[in-house]
Amino acid sequence: MSQWKQIQQLEIKYLEQVDYLYDDNFPMDIRQVLSNWIESQDWDTAANHESMATVLLNNLLSQLDRQCSQEQNFLQRHNLKIINQQLQLKYKASPLLMASVISTCLREERRIISTASIQEQGPLEKSLQN
Amino acid sequence: MSQWKQIQQLEIKYLEQVDYLYDDNFPMDIRQVLSNWIESQDWDTAANHESMATVLLNNLLSQLDRQCSQEQNFLQRHNLKIINQQLQLKYKASPLLMASVISTCLREERRIISTASIQEQGPLEKSLQN
Repeated sequence: MSQWKQIQQLEIKYLEQVDYLYDDNFPMDIRQVLSNWIESQDWDTAANHESMATVLLNNLLSQLDRQCSQEQNFLQRHNLKIINQQLQLKYKASPLLMASVISTCLREERRIISTASIQEQGPLEKSLQN
Repeated sequence: MSQWKQIQQLEIKYLEQVDYLYDDNFPMDIRQVLSNWIESQDWDTAANHESMATVLLNNLLSQLDRQCSQEQNFLQRHNLKIINQQLQLKYKASPLLMASVISTCLREERRIISTASIQEQGPLEKSLQN
């Protein structure tokens, strides 16, 4: 199951933690629309290699363009168009920053999923692990 | 038919004009989620009366809160929460500005609908009108 699908199955108290990860720096709409592609890229490495970060940013923008042109829903299309413009303004001159933001979000998501799965275990399972 | 429904039935060239009306000052998500309520308020008067503008802003924020708590979709709920925070930051000290922004958007929508309906008429209907 993709990381993003696991996130969406969390209890509300964990979802509220996920809420804090997403804002204009990395809008949740992108995380959802391009979830599989995002999870299959190496953002940790890109956060330290400008040429790789630039390629990933350009790929992300062209995928957003494609999604936008295929989207039938007016509101969704409008939002994707605005996000595309905002990301270009924000990251065209600093693609490393975008890679670093996405890398941090994905790592924090994994931390939240892991915390949730530990808390879900009963006392017996926890003691068997220790 | 509500004004917002009429907007969504326009051809793509008119929808692109509508796109320009909506940004962070008045996110399209609100226009859609609260469309009936928005169309039934007198924003033109509120844009010149601070106490009325304040009441409308508070009503809008509590309705957004309610929508947010009822929304089942995680992404939608997240977006409404962010919009609520942004509107509070932007307009709590200047509710007249919010009323003026919404009043302008609604007026521009009517202008676009009217232009579209004139363009759709054939030459005979146009000459009969003149």
